[in-house]
Amino acid sequence: MSDVHAADAHALEAIAEVRAIDALIRAFPRRPDQLNGPHEADAELLPLGPDRWLAATVDGLAGELAVGFYRDWYTAGWTLVQACLSDLAAVGATPLGVLLAITRGPDGIVPERLTLGIADALRAEGVAALGGDLNDGVAPHLDATALGLVEGAPPLLRLGIRPGDALYATGPLGAGNALAIARLTGAPDDLWPEARYRPHARLAEGRAARGVARAAIDTNDGPMSVIDHLARLNGVGFRLDFDLARLLEPGAREAFAAAGLPAWALFAGEHGEYELIAAVAPEREGELRACWPHAVRLGEATAARGIALALPDGRTEAYDGSFVRNLLVACGGDWRAYTRDFAAYGQSLGLS
Amino acid sequence: MSDVHAADAHALEAIAEVRAIDALIRAFPRRPDQLNGPHEADAELLPLGPDRWLAATVDGLAGELAVGFYRDWYTAGWTLVQACLSDLAAVGATPLGVLLAITRGPDGIVPERLTLGIADALRAEGVAALGGDLNDGVAPHLDATALGLVEGAPPLLRLGIRPGDALYATGPLGAGNALAIARLTGAPDDLWPEARYRPHARLAEGRAARGVARAAIDTNDGPMSVIDHLARLNGVGFRLDFDLARLLEPGAREAFAAAGLPAWALFAGEHGEYELIAAVAPEREGELRACWPHAVRLGEATAARGIALALPDGRTEAYDGSFVRNLLVACGGDWRAYTRDFAAYGQSLGLS
Repeated sequence: MSDVHAADAHALEAIAEVRAIDALIRAFPRRPDQLNGPHEADAELLPLGPDRWLAATVDGLAGELAVGFYRDWYTAGWTLVQACLSDLAAVGATPLGVLLAITRGPDGIVPERLTLGIADALRAEGVAALGGDLNDGVAPHLDATALGLVEGAPPLLRLGIRPGDALYATGPLGAGNALAIARLTGAPDDLWPEARYRPHARLAEGRAARGVARAAIDTNDGPMSVIDHLARLNGVGFRLDFDLARLLEPGAREAFAAAGLPAWALFAGEHGEYELIAAVAPEREGELRACWPHAVRLGEATAARGIALALPDGRTEAYDGSFVRNLLVACGGDWRAYTRDFAAYGQSLGLS
Repeated sequence: MSDVHAADAHALEAIAEVRAIDALIRAFPRRPDQLNGPHEADAELLPLGPDRWLAATVDGLAGELAVGFYRDWYTAGWTLVQACLSDLAAVGATPLGVLLAITRGPDGIVPERLTLGIADALRAEGVAALGGDLNDGVAPHLDATALGLVEGAPPLLRLGIRPGDALYATGPLGAGNALAIARLTGAPDDLWPEARYRPHARLAEGRAARGVARAAIDTNDGPMSVIDHLARLNGVGFRLDFDLARLLEPGAREAFAAAGLPAWALFAGEHGEYELIAAVAPEREGELRACWPHAVRLGEATAARGIALALPDGRTEAYDGSFVRNLLVACGGDWRAYTRDFAAYGQSLGLS
């Protein structure tokens, strides 16, 4: 951890990935008129005229492919599209389309299931492929850029949360981590069949929340990690009503219970389900609920920094969001060590 | 080569890469209002309002990295940025900025020289980094998306060339292939030092050519291959005034002469120097020359399809653009076989 920043455990800079990104950004020229600073929005936002912004975002699946989360190329194609659209959703943009950067591996083949997964995800969200780049490399690689417009009310940023704000998700959480944890623990395929992992970017919910919510983010990096990100960015904390029976997708929770796996990991793991999480002023909770039909209330923002888990048994545990977010770096990229230390951290807090 | 299309040797579909891209595009939904069809422009073009278009393009360096063209990460970073900006140049767009998708390899490191090359290229062209994605994969990978605006006169497409049009490049050609051929032939580093390969996207020239040139393309895939592409796309041919002493960057030509390497390959290889090539109506040649200070006249469009090389010794040779463009696929991705067959093709035409 770097010298100056380690002083504040609640700062954004306590996260290794944030420091790695900042090291890049510092080197590069920026636009003075870009609406968002680094880390402050899910998509980059540029003014195009009065009450009109361009939203642009690029997302890749290198990590997911490297660790083997997806055994069916269809899942990779589907997720590639939903991941970048989800960033548009989080700023409340309407998609213009997607650019695809597809790198074939040494066999020179684009798997048919990959093409189909991409095509089906685009059709499911009513979004066009604008073009892209087809390339050849030492290994298959997938990046996608999504472009969108925001018109009228300004885009949603991750900034603006105040103590007392309520925190909501667009729906029950855990489907992303169900798949990731099944893979990392070597669970049988039927624990969480890959075909159940078909996230949908919450485009309608994002647009509806613009002008209502205070700030939003998608769960690309897993629910707990993005809540931790909101806390650090806004200089607040969150008290989460950590009743997992209420927060988690029932099927995932039941499958994990049957397999003896800890349910808290479905919330705290870092493979997301592409729901949105938004903070809303208390007096506008009703409005947000009205436009998020499957909303799940997660808790409230607090003046005290950090994340506090209010457990159903009455205990309150302080959760260190930086532990999991820095874990892969701390483990030197070793996923076995990561899986072991991740589980041990939950046990140390008495989470089940 | 696929069945139906092989019938017309001058069709776009005679190119394996075009067929691979078409197979993808056919599967994906498109926008009816996109200005360009597949293969028809260097960047994707969407109307944003009256006399206003968004230009977007993604480019990766997977192939260049896999074959080892760049030994200095600085060159990769520099080229990554220039490659995507060059696509904006070819449509006459003004850059809004660049999104960077950087995948670290197993060492988890972003090389400092890579960061510096990206930063210097952005500064050299006065373009901002908007954001991006930092990821981890089985190997380093680089993609960049460039976004731009076209306002006033419509964007340049690759379409609209008529027999009799003059063909120009923004400057002398061959620097891209000098590096690539030096690598592929195992030439000593001093044949064409990598630091001499520092292409500049011709943004000013592209903007100036909008409303003057009939059509444009950048030399990303090497001068001859992109001329072949223009021919196929427009249903025309080109007669090239193939006096290499006039067409090529003098330093590259002299280095190749000293090393006994064939100069024609500097024009016909597929590693580009990111100049622009444009067709212009004969009566507007003067205007194009006025806005392209280093312009090199390459030849004229002909009603007869295919590429004819008018050689300084008075011979005219028919050049089959599909030979080189399909060669890597025909060689099963074997760069040694590619290099051998490439050289043999030039010999068969008596090129030096």
